Amino acid sequence: MPGSIFGTLFRISTWGESHGNGVGVVVDGCPAGLKLAERDIQLELNKRRPGQNKFSSPRKENDKVEILSGVFEGLTLGTPISMIIKNTDHRPKDYTNIKDVYRPGHADYTFDQKYGIRDYRGGGRSSARETIGRVAAGAIAKKILAEFGIELLGYTRSVGPFSVDMDNFDLEAISENLLRMPDAACAEATSKYVDEIIKEGNSIGGTIECQVTGVPAGLGETVFDKLDANLAKGVMSIGAIKSVEIGAGLEVATRKGYDNNDFAHYDGKDIIKDSNNGGGIYGGMSDGSPIIIRAAVKPTASIHIEQPSISATGKNIDVMIEGRHDPVIVPRAVTILEAMTALVLVDALMMNMTSRMDYLKKIYE
Amino acid sequence: MPGSIFGTLFRISTWGESHGNGVGVVVDGCPAGLKLAERDIQLELNKRRPGQNKFSSPRKENDKVEILSGVFEGLTLGTPISMIIKNTDHRPKDYTNIKDVYRPGHADYTFDQKYGIRDYRGGGRSSARETIGRVAAGAIAKKILAEFGIELLGYTRSVGPFSVDMDNFDLEAISENLLRMPDAACAEATSKYVDEIIKEGNSIGGTIECQVTGVPAGLGETVFDKLDANLAKGVMSIGAIKSVEIGAGLEVATRKGYDNNDFAHYDGKDIIKDSNNGGGIYGGMSDGSPIIIRAAVKPTASIHIEQPSISATGKNIDVMIEGRHDPVIVPRAVTILEAMTALVLVDALMMNMTSRMDYLKKIYE
Amino acid sequence: MPGSIFGTLFRISTWGESHGNGVGVVVDGCPAGLKLAERDIQLELNKRRPGQNKFSSPRKENDKVEILSGVFEGLTLGTPISMIIKNTDHRPKDYTNIKDVYRPGHADYTFDQKYGIRDYRGGGRSSARETIGRVAAGAIAKKILAEFGIELLGYTRSVGPFSVDMDNFDLEAISENLLRMPDAACAEATSKYVDEIIKEGNSIGGTIECQVTGVPAGLGETVFDKLDANLAKGVMSIGAIKSVEIGAGLEVATRKGYDNNDFAHYDGKDIIKDSNNGGGIYGGMSDGSPIIIRAAVKPTASIHIEQPSISATGKNIDVMIEGRHDPVIVPRAVTILEAMTALVLVDALMMNMTSRMDYLKKIYE
Amino acid sequence: MPGSIFGTLFRISTWGESHGNGVGVVVDGCPAGLKLAERDIQLELNKRRPGQNKFSSPRKENDKVEILSGVFEGLTLGTPISMIIKNTDHRPKDYTNIKDVYRPGHADYTFDQKYGIRDYRGGGRSSARETIGRVAAGAIAKKILAEFGIELLGYTRSVGPFSVDMDNFDLEAISENLLRMPDAACAEATSKYVDEIIKEGNSIGGTIECQVTGVPAGLGETVFDKLDANLAKGVMSIGAIKSVEIGAGLEVATRKGYDNNDFAHYDGKDIIKDSNNGGGIYGGMSDGSPIIIRAAVKPTASIHIEQPSISATGKNIDVMIEGRHDPVIVPRAVTILEAMTALVLVDALMMNMTSRMDYLKKIYE
Repeated sequence: MPGSIFGTLFRISTWGESHGNGVGVVVDGCPAGLKLAERDIQLELNKRRPGQNKFSSPRKENDKVEILSGVFEGLTLGTPISMIIKNTDHRPKDYTNIKDVYRPGHADYTFDQKYGIRDYRGGGRSSARETIGRVAAGAIAKKILAEFGIELLGYTRSVGPFSVDMDNFDLEAISENLLRMPDAACAEATSKYVDEIIKEGNSIGGTIECQVTGVPAGLGETVFDKLDANLAKGVMSIGAIKSVEIGAGLEVATRKGYDNNDFAHYDGKDIIKDSNNGGGIYGGMSDGSPIIIRAAVKPTASIHIEQPSISATGKNIDVMIEGRHDPVIVPRAVTILEAMTALVLVDALMMNMTSRMDYLKKIYE
Repeated sequence: MPGSIFGTLFRISTWGESHGNGVGVVVDGCPAGLKLAERDIQLELNKRRPGQNKFSSPRKENDKVEILSGVFEGLTLGTPISMIIKNTDHRPKDYTNIKDVYRPGHADYTFDQKYGIRDYRGGGRSSARETIGRVAAGAIAKKILAEFGIELLGYTRSVGPFSVDMDNFDLEAISENLLRMPDAACAEATSKYVDEIIKEGNSIGGTIECQVTGVPAGLGETVFDKLDANLAKGVMSIGAIKSVEIGAGLEVATRKGYDNNDFAHYDGKDIIKDSNNGGGIYGGMSDGSPIIIRAAVKPTASIHIEQPSISATGKNIDVMIEGRHDPVIVPRAVTILEAMTALVLVDALMMNMTSRMDYLKKIYE
Repeated sequence: MPGSIFGTLFRISTWGESHGNGVGVVVDGCPAGLKLAERDIQLELNKRRPGQNKFSSPRKENDKVEILSGVFEGLTLGTPISMIIKNTDHRPKDYTNIKDVYRPGHADYTFDQKYGIRDYRGGGRSSARETIGRVAAGAIAKKILAEFGIELLGYTRSVGPFSVDMDNFDLEAISENLLRMPDAACAEATSKYVDEIIKEGNSIGGTIECQVTGVPAGLGETVFDKLDANLAKGVMSIGAIKSVEIGAGLEVATRKGYDNNDFAHYDGKDIIKDSNNGGGIYGGMSDGSPIIIRAAVKPTASIHIEQPSISATGKNIDVMIEGRHDPVIVPRAVTILEAMTALVLVDALMMNMTSRMDYLKKIYE
Repeated sequence: MPGSIFGTLFRISTWGESHGNGVGVVVDGCPAGLKLAERDIQLELNKRRPGQNKFSSPRKENDKVEILSGVFEGLTLGTPISMIIKNTDHRPKDYTNIKDVYRPGHADYTFDQKYGIRDYRGGGRSSARETIGRVAAGAIAKKILAEFGIELLGYTRSVGPFSVDMDNFDLEAISENLLRMPDAACAEATSKYVDEIIKEGNSIGGTIECQVTGVPAGLGETVFDKLDANLAKGVMSIGAIKSVEIGAGLEVATRKGYDNNDFAHYDGKDIIKDSNNGGGIYGGMSDGSPIIIRAAVKPTASIHIEQPSISATGKNIDVMIEGRHDPVIVPRAVTILEAMTALVLVDALMMNMTSRMDYLKKIYE
């Protein structure tokens, strides 16, 4: 059951139900001496927030973060950083009619099976609001990584049948379209498509990707705590994710060894890699190339179409879900992908500090 | 660095280099009172062993397991079970010529970057021999699961361009072809294809899948330790894996919500699910349907073709890898997929026992 | 650094500085279906609270707890329970004059050495206010234990030279004197003694003890996670504790084996132990007898007497500590001893559920 | 149940029963690049070994260690170090007559209660042989600590009524008497006393102490993972230990604050502490003074005197224990105390490396 704690040295503990008093996170293990203000957290939360545009749930939450501990005179103390985000626009009334309903595509049934009790309001702990704690903690992780030149870039790679053209990757487009696609033309076409989905009362899936640059070689451990293994866990733990790929990912299944191996050469003094099918990770350790992680996001389970389902009381019913939902959760998931990637990386960065006697000597001699 | 320990309650600690004295595993947390003999372990190790046929490395290892502790008069004691498998056919001579070479597609470079030292013989800790400990521990996990009617079925889904026909799934075929495909016709065609790959001195990738039946509903935790998240970690931690999918996996990215949601109805007393896109997991918890996990295996990095590469001493070189390697590692990876899946499930089974006051009462009242 | 998380299955994460916005705790792993209300927590917090009488710090805090998550309609959900206690009577002004002072007997110097930064107001994270999170979480642990008939009884055994007469143990006296002694006469004599200590501006140490009855046999693990080992950690982690004893404790050092061994006999059907020198624990596992744990509490470091000390700026200084402090922290430490003992026991109770195949069968068959 | 793993970053996993094939340990997390040979381990094991003199069990074990992995060309690889020590002089026959007997002072009853099964031969997992893995791993920990000038000094402080004179502490005496006392005269008197104990067929308890010098300030975490808390756990987890004290320990209970506080002053540039009642730890963190830890060892439970007891079959019996036992386990416990102290310290040394952004910068900039 203790499933709400993540990380080994940079360890976070999230809490909160969709329609309770609020959600939050405690970060235990943030190094002392990092400049940190609520604004740093708020910027990331704002990207995740619902109610921002037609493609996301109209629930209005300002998701304002308060830092309750661990920061003193603008610097982290090395002690736990507790952050709380109060729920404001929660409307329990919306959900009373589905109290006994097991909504298709949701965790209602499994919650009841596991715990014998469930907060049915807005999905309770399995609501997307659960991810706020991840994003708040991830904002701190990103700030630490940035101190070492490690930058994360997340974006939408596809929505339904529309995929961005990676050969014409446009960094600036990401923040200029609601779908967070690095391709304005694709975003425009997709946007029209999503309008149709909204009219249907339906939802649509997609894929998201995160590139991490500036990662030093050697992060990640060699067997079970491989960097890619921990990334896979972190990303698969996001509610709607059904696949995780590293580098060439699923494509390796149809490739020959000669074509899939990444060749490298020295260009004077630097190592130049001719490809990055490994996604920046070999043997579970970073090799200094950009890390590439990709995930498939399922279409939002809550749709405005009547669906057959079952009730907790043993009846076959047709359910029409009220409430407020995202027709496409993909762009909001980008922020969460970045957060989870950052959390895994900062933990790996810290874990790696004890891998060599040389490093111990740098601190203690 | 402590990356060789896996699991929370059923916790394993593996060790061993490819060309050291042996490899092994300590299982801490196996419940007392389980019937266990070396034969139970040996059966699984035999499936993983190299040198069995033309598609796997000709290295001859009998991989004989010895149980050193934790079992008394045929029953587990509840204390750590230490198992050792000695290396016999290790030939260090094969590797001296690649001491300073960073082989393409391997972890040689990252090991050196992380630790500043590396056992270059046969990949050292990143050798496929590392997986022996996983399979040995997984054999115990499977035995526990079987006591509760939980069965794992792993198989090859595709090799290169050849995919099995899932509509004509043939359970018995799996053990009748070297490729472990549930489709004899596909296996035959693939076999010819792999013969060509061998002639080229090349290798080929593929996909593997594991179905788990008999899983009670409610296994898995709700946020970070979701069942699918832990499965993703376990499976991605296997050396050659580059993608992990649950249920419909990557396909959800192009689906609409109505089509992807799994509908269910009561058929008299039982719940019947009309589809299993969720792969048996909702909100990170099992729903009682079969769990479906799928992974992509990259083509073996070691091939008998000259490749451009770099040396630890800063030179651009062409490398021709000697030694013994698998042209297609896919069928052997099936055994490891089953092992990791079993390890995650038995841990989830044990973790779940503390999820409800009702359960505590069953033990203590 | 991640030092603010405790427990394996019943896992708590505490946070908060003495003079920040508040203190709190997140409990991850509380089983679902436990009746829980803020009142249950408040009763325990009230015992720990300062400002209650002449023997404790006059800081006035009502220490009112709010449960922010994890409880729904009066029952625990199985999800994290976040509790916050706001700081109200914090007066940062009291501490500005000691900003650069390393107070004798305090953690000021070590905090600076470890983190290079320190919240000097009221001890920051090393304040006794840090224990509020322990007590709040401990209250839940106690409630779970009580469901199985496991009861904790903590009390003061000695203060300075005054020790209670254990042969005339008076259960009811504990709540009738400010010192929480199970011996009214001793409490009265001690009380006069402490009055003298207060006049001196000094402080005094003591010992506290906790007896736990109703513990089923078999709790605790066999090697490192012995029940006594985890109790020792939990209790030694309380700020002012300098020794921990189990059962006969230090006295065993002068005993012979024949005198120290606990003999037992069957009295008809029950096992009767003739002594309990083992303190209810053998080989790290409970034997069904009362568990006895004892700890020495050092005299409060903050006293109203001028003391020689050093400053962060390299000067030798004499320091006179202002602020509000306890002349004898012993009685308040009893509550924290109970909390830590309860936390360790509930974790052991849950861990033990997976020790036998029989137990798994009780849940899953 | 998973109770045989210890440590966070320097993590050890021990295994083995008294009369099984052997005992051993896997060390996961040892930094790469440490010079290590079997001889380093053997030296420590030899100190712990039984059969060395009249005060220890006559069981003859050469306790020869083999390193099976993790070391290459004399240096640690950063991968798991597996060590095995085979059992040679185990005589199961000695124990068949106590198969159903619950020996007084032993864990026989609790093992049966917990697991429902027990290896009755020589105590099984609760035998003193279990500590071999601790000592082997501790030898590596000591070697790392020594690289940073951190030295451990363990010795016997008292046996029964005889205590060493700490004012005439004689370092060299420790290795010159069988009792490991830093006081030749006391050792001689004690030796005669123990001869009497042997004649009685009885056993006797004592206290042991370990001083650690050269510890940098700042090791240990601030709340639950305080350095003293982790030391208390590590030491209390040793089989026969019943109390753990830090610095002044139990004596603080009778002291006043002014007398117990450690005063310090600058002597030119260095800080001089006038006392070390804190035992080198404040707020759970080392302050640079020697760390002082002390423990009480109970008299060996196995004695050659008939004792009343009970059987697993419900009978009251008198038991006369055969087998080979230590009349005084105290001197052998010194080696184990050192091992556990070293394990806790090396873990704290590694954990502390991530406490400050400054430290991260030393590695990554």
